[in-house]
Amino acid sequence: MLDGGLSRRAAENLEKVRERKPLVHSITNYVVMNYTANALLACGASAVMAHGDEEVEEIVSLADALVLNLGTLTRARVETMAKAGKKANERSIPIVLDPVGAGASRLRTDAATRLLHELSIRVVRGNPSEILSLGGRGLRSKGVESVHVVEQAVEAGLSLAKLHSVTVAVTGKVDFVTDGSKTCRIHNGHHMMKYVTGAGCAATSLIAAFLSVDPHPLEATATALSCFGLAGEKAGEGEVGPGTFQARLLDALYMMDEESLKEGVKIETAFFRPS
Amino acid sequence: MLDGGLSRRAAENLEKVRERKPLVHSITNYVVMNYTANALLACGASAVMAHGDEEVEEIVSLADALVLNLGTLTRARVETMAKAGKKANERSIPIVLDPVGAGASRLRTDAATRLLHELSIRVVRGNPSEILSLGGRGLRSKGVESVHVVEQAVEAGLSLAKLHSVTVAVTGKVDFVTDGSKTCRIHNGHHMMKYVTGAGCAATSLIAAFLSVDPHPLEATATALSCFGLAGEKAGEGEVGPGTFQARLLDALYMMDEESLKEGVKIETAFFRPS
Amino acid sequence: MLDGGLSRRAAENLEKVRERKPLVHSITNYVVMNYTANALLACGASAVMAHGDEEVEEIVSLADALVLNLGTLTRARVETMAKAGKKANERSIPIVLDPVGAGASRLRTDAATRLLHELSIRVVRGNPSEILSLGGRGLRSKGVESVHVVEQAVEAGLSLAKLHSVTVAVTGKVDFVTDGSKTCRIHNGHHMMKYVTGAGCAATSLIAAFLSVDPHPLEATATALSCFGLAGEKAGEGEVGPGTFQARLLDALYMMDEESLKEGVKIETAFFRPS
Repeated sequence: MLDGGLSRRAAENLEKVRERKPLVHSITNYVVMNYTANALLACGASAVMAHGDEEVEEIVSLADALVLNLGTLTRARVETMAKAGKKANERSIPIVLDPVGAGASRLRTDAATRLLHELSIRVVRGNPSEILSLGGRGLRSKGVESVHVVEQAVEAGLSLAKLHSVTVAVTGKVDFVTDGSKTCRIHNGHHMMKYVTGAGCAATSLIAAFLSVDPHPLEATATALSCFGLAGEKAGEGEVGPGTFQARLLDALYMMDEESLKEGVKIETAFFRPS
Repeated sequence: MLDGGLSRRAAENLEKVRERKPLVHSITNYVVMNYTANALLACGASAVMAHGDEEVEEIVSLADALVLNLGTLTRARVETMAKAGKKANERSIPIVLDPVGAGASRLRTDAATRLLHELSIRVVRGNPSEILSLGGRGLRSKGVESVHVVEQAVEAGLSLAKLHSVTVAVTGKVDFVTDGSKTCRIHNGHHMMKYVTGAGCAATSLIAAFLSVDPHPLEATATALSCFGLAGEKAGEGEVGPGTFQARLLDALYMMDEESLKEGVKIETAFFRPS
Repeated sequence: MLDGGLSRRAAENLEKVRERKPLVHSITNYVVMNYTANALLACGASAVMAHGDEEVEEIVSLADALVLNLGTLTRARVETMAKAGKKANERSIPIVLDPVGAGASRLRTDAATRLLHELSIRVVRGNPSEILSLGGRGLRSKGVESVHVVEQAVEAGLSLAKLHSVTVAVTGKVDFVTDGSKTCRIHNGHHMMKYVTGAGCAATSLIAAFLSVDPHPLEATATALSCFGLAGEKAGEGEVGPGTFQARLLDALYMMDEESLKEGVKIETAFFRPS
């Protein structure tokens, strides 16, 4: 059943982001830095990218949310992320982890596991194979564009959520979000999004922006993903290729308004029954 | 009072850039590398990005101008910048410093200060809070998208210009450029430019290209900023979102012509009176 | 004489890429990562970018092809490339080398030479000055956008092909490909491509995708370059600037179909006669 309350909340959250212009600090991969920053600006947030080990703590101390994204990872970068994350936890600002490529290399899987253990992470967003690799199913991912093993990933996401008291988002054709008890399924999005490198990473950064204005991780995450997916739907209207789509997705984020969200947001909510 | 001479000079400088295709070597941040290179190509210059400590001196020796941009900084990168800058000074090619995030971390503030002391920098371009942090006012910037404290920044820019014999550009709604005695205010630009990450960094690289064909830093800087701002005005015609705007800004740089510049350039010039 | 067989082969290769979705692992420069990944996605392949020394071997072990691109190089990165390349050779997946800036610094020239000696490279793609610098002619390139000294480069490419048993592509207004005995000249492309930073690097990644489905390096390379050039022709229809062109080039890759390729591919083939 669609949850109309979350449509209104999506509009409220976006409005708050535009008013408060939260500064989202991303320690992220080189492939998506530009698009991520532009997505944050398009939705009204501010963006700072900084990964110098000598400065991350200072930058975190100015930020309203922190994104840790494991693409193009090195061992040294993991240390920097741990340091930045500790500072974010001290300041109680939300951290979102994007375990890009977890399951594809030990470095990435270990980094995700370590950060989940050492830090208090608010939300983890990944594709099915990434979440599966962290949820203890040991499936080896074939890179970042892996097969859609959605249902097993949902189960893995649920166990991950309970184990680490974290909200988990498994994104794909339908996005799934759970905090371990309540769950949302988001039916927004457009097939062309998978042709935009870093669309998932941009979604992660929007979650961070929404978390900075909404203290409820499940709701913040679901509304951010729905808002992003709806922007994708608008960007995909007509017949467009991926280059044009990519530009229009930023346009659509910028132009997103209350009316569109109230009409377009499609979030189902449910509670897990004890099994 | 608008300075018609600078409209003609803008057209002449752009024409020279297109004829000579100066090679601009940028040591810049990862977020904006792609857009900066494309902006340089769009206005007719050539671009090379190289930050390997083992090769920067050789690359500088091929270049017509050098950009040092402090985004996504590390301590090691500062050393590389100092080395590249020394080579540029030896060869007497212009250096432009973009102190991204100065004031947001000690690493960045110290790096900007050090480079200003050790090198002969031709132009510094920053937003108001960055220039304030270097002009001795000790205001701590909230990242790169900070409050517009334009007038204090103008004062800080002036003292910076005098202290280091450098031309300073403080960019924002109105751009301010000074060499410590003469000053220009540029009334070109479009509000959508603040939604394009790296628009400021692209402006910096255009200043570098213009400096390579115009030996007068104030005039080169003012005409480059005006040309870039005018391209923004053309890109923003009609109702566009930031994704489309970003592409059109490159289109407009490429299509910029003498007539448009003569009509559209809005640069006021004035001399400071001793106070 | 145009080779109609290669038109059909271009269509077949593209179809196979779309069916098999080969994972192309790129160790590439920071300027072009985003555009390269998007170009790979647009033509139906998958993309992974990973350069962490701790993980490249694992990522290569998942990949169907490896790209080594020498832009924004450091000495440490060369070691990582050598390690990744050895793994790719063990697994017999194709390696494509893009010697960006060879001739512009000793680091890059030496890296290209070393990788050609230590690894079994399937294809080298470069612009004329890059290929000249590797073919023993010792011409010092002025960065990446150098003068078109095409005919000498063709000769250098031929000697490089024979020396290293590698297929060499020299791209420019007309693309030249040789395996040391047979040769192709590709008459596709659009003048606007030189205003898109990383267009050449994107072409390299498409060659890698095509090599993963076509065991014949000359044919795979020629059809990939022709397909990319034809996409450029379609992107350039009408009057467009470089920002719009860049987006449309991705659109055109995505929309490329059998009919367009059969009509549009312009590849001449010839055999070298012993001189």
